[in-house]
Amino acid sequence: MSDRESLFSLQRAQRAILARAQPLAAERIPLERALGRVAAVSLKSTMPKPSFDQSTRDGYGLADIPPDFAEYPELSLPVIGEIAAGAPEVGSLQQGQAVRIMTGAPVPTGCSRVLPFEVCREQDGRVTLAASLLRCPETYIRRRGSDLVAGRVLVRKGQAIRADHLLMLAENGYVGVRVVRRPRVEVVCTGSELVNPGARVGSGQKVSGNGVLLSALVRGTGAICAGTASVPDQVEQLTRALAERIEKGPQVIITTGGMGPGRFDLVEEVFAALGGETVYRRLKMRPGKSTLFGLVQGILFFGLPGPPPAVHLLFHELVAPALRGMQGQRRPVPERIPARLQEEVRLRRAGRMNLKAGVATFAQGRLVVRPAGRTDATNAVMLLPANRKIFRVDDRVPVHLL
Amino acid sequence: MSDRESLFSLQRAQRAILARAQPLAAERIPLERALGRVAAVSLKSTMPKPSFDQSTRDGYGLADIPPDFAEYPELSLPVIGEIAAGAPEVGSLQQGQAVRIMTGAPVPTGCSRVLPFEVCREQDGRVTLAASLLRCPETYIRRRGSDLVAGRVLVRKGQAIRADHLLMLAENGYVGVRVVRRPRVEVVCTGSELVNPGARVGSGQKVSGNGVLLSALVRGTGAICAGTASVPDQVEQLTRALAERIEKGPQVIITTGGMGPGRFDLVEEVFAALGGETVYRRLKMRPGKSTLFGLVQGILFFGLPGPPPAVHLLFHELVAPALRGMQGQRRPVPERIPARLQEEVRLRRAGRMNLKAGVATFAQGRLVVRPAGRTDATNAVMLLPANRKIFRVDDRVPVHLL
Repeated sequence: MSDRESLFSLQRAQRAILARAQPLAAERIPLERALGRVAAVSLKSTMPKPSFDQSTRDGYGLADIPPDFAEYPELSLPVIGEIAAGAPEVGSLQQGQAVRIMTGAPVPTGCSRVLPFEVCREQDGRVTLAASLLRCPETYIRRRGSDLVAGRVLVRKGQAIRADHLLMLAENGYVGVRVVRRPRVEVVCTGSELVNPGARVGSGQKVSGNGVLLSALVRGTGAICAGTASVPDQVEQLTRALAERIEKGPQVIITTGGMGPGRFDLVEEVFAALGGETVYRRLKMRPGKSTLFGLVQGILFFGLPGPPPAVHLLFHELVAPALRGMQGQRRPVPERIPARLQEEVRLRRAGRMNLKAGVATFAQGRLVVRPAGRTDATNAVMLLPANRKIFRVDDRVPVHLL
Repeated sequence: MSDRESLFSLQRAQRAILARAQPLAAERIPLERALGRVAAVSLKSTMPKPSFDQSTRDGYGLADIPPDFAEYPELSLPVIGEIAAGAPEVGSLQQGQAVRIMTGAPVPTGCSRVLPFEVCREQDGRVTLAASLLRCPETYIRRRGSDLVAGRVLVRKGQAIRADHLLMLAENGYVGVRVVRRPRVEVVCTGSELVNPGARVGSGQKVSGNGVLLSALVRGTGAICAGTASVPDQVEQLTRALAERIEKGPQVIITTGGMGPGRFDLVEEVFAALGGETVYRRLKMRPGKSTLFGLVQGILFFGLPGPPPAVHLLFHELVAPALRGMQGQRRPVPERIPARLQEEVRLRRAGRMNLKAGVATFAQGRLVVRPAGRTDATNAVMLLPANRKIFRVDDRVPVHLL
């Protein structure tokens, strides 16, 4: 592969990744575990809603009244019974009769309206009401199918299932749903200077934070982080670590570090020795000078650089779309939304697109963004276009919200 | 309590709830389980970052060069060794010496700059470089503490821990963190017409979806849904169900249904009989005519109405702030953000604030919202102010994003 070919833009890299991140197989899971999972098929309503004509008030159900009722200021009707919510058998109502009926209860055959308790009075088995109430257009009856008919799509194929969906699916009798399986991801952090969290930090060493960072980011996309490991910059140890991970058969392997041009930057060499085929090994953006994507034994392989800020940005732009694509999501690449800059951004060099970690908020209903400080939790990636070094306050820049 | 007193506005209800939703006790948990949990104390950096002067390139470390160097176009220096990342002992560098050094490696005493490999050439143990490079202000050395000093707040007390925080905490040697415990919530759905998901739906019956809905919504706030149950509208059964739930000692109980004025609306009666003290039993908004909040044996008790759309809206405005407050979050009530209406909204009655389920998106970086359709997943609550029945396209309405 020539150097020229390998200089992918972000969009081209995303296309190349998504072409290889096909949706996994479907599985059936219980409804109560489906929150956040992606529907493998479109899930449709199975019954009309409501499934029977029902009262929307506690009140009296009435049959049609003869047209001459208007001559009387008041009507007095016999109350023939009571229908509670959930009543299985409700019979029918004859002209001139009334029935006590509760909210949510099925209205009997022949019942054309309900009048709420508060506008009627009942005494000695008869209910008295103003005849004028019968001219009101509101019947206090929700008709079968008036909310939703059977066969309507409740959750589209490729849509992530949310709380409202669970409600609709439960109401339609679903106890399980077919969702796309979640990819399993193995993380390998390389660097002889790294020690695992909790270990003693010697001179010249630092704690590897990329493992906990990537574990959290992977889980944030809905995928499974199957394991994280740290290995020093030594060919044998790195080869063994990656071979072990490949053996486990995850869908995705992510490495951090070891991607520079130096003698200790071994990831590409070991990846190739294990049969890996490189799709790109650098990108036309910053960060992106040293980041590899390829396939090894059918597993998607992302070689990310070592510095955690670059890991975080490249994860969101490159790895997360793959993990969402494998889960069958329809739009695995987040939408670019224009946001106004709240602080000036000066870059050292123009000529390439720059990704910057940002903190996005709202100001009068408009999205605004500022570069993330050292201790900020990032919630946006700013995609600063090439050929500009200075971005001023109030300039519009595209962002991906996390 | 008089009826007048009981007509709380949304804000007053939220204040009354939050006054009783005190943060729970702290607990120490492993860092890798801390994502989304709320810090019980401020978590500070424990060491400078970087913790030693380190090279930012693979290259040659140089000691100060005597000021007369500029007379020579090139310098040739002996390479006295190599320092890899993670090297524990790095010694010192004398004037006129160079050392091979890798990215992330500690720079030795006396080393004042690094020159990247690509601008130097090495042969026979000596490195040759252009003297003009030594005038460059960039030293390719990250100085100890230049990113962050010790003692800086990484996560504020009351802040939810995000992926970036996990990284920073790991780098600072944290293996566990003190977070606020999560409230346990018991859900009881009332209604004789309800059957549990999966059961046969007889005539006049419907599947209760409030259980799965609330379970998902509770988990979405970070709290624990300890159980959901359905009970018919009968005093004995409802009393037994609630007494059992109280016995389990959750922090919060939520009921749905049984909150109207009818004879089968038993929640308030049973709540009082079990020793419950009502704080409010209706609100000056829609929905909100029939919703109770109180305390029973120290447990926060939310009596929500039966219809799922009202359950969803009232959960977000009343219950979720309580669950976030108990988890110690600083701002348990979501911010109100103005959004432009994309569709006209007509209400049947003005006079009260109306909550409406909405779908919020962006249009040119501005937040826009439309009323949620029957099969939409809601992602915003519109808070339509009182005294208006018609809200037109492009009108600004406040929303809470979910």
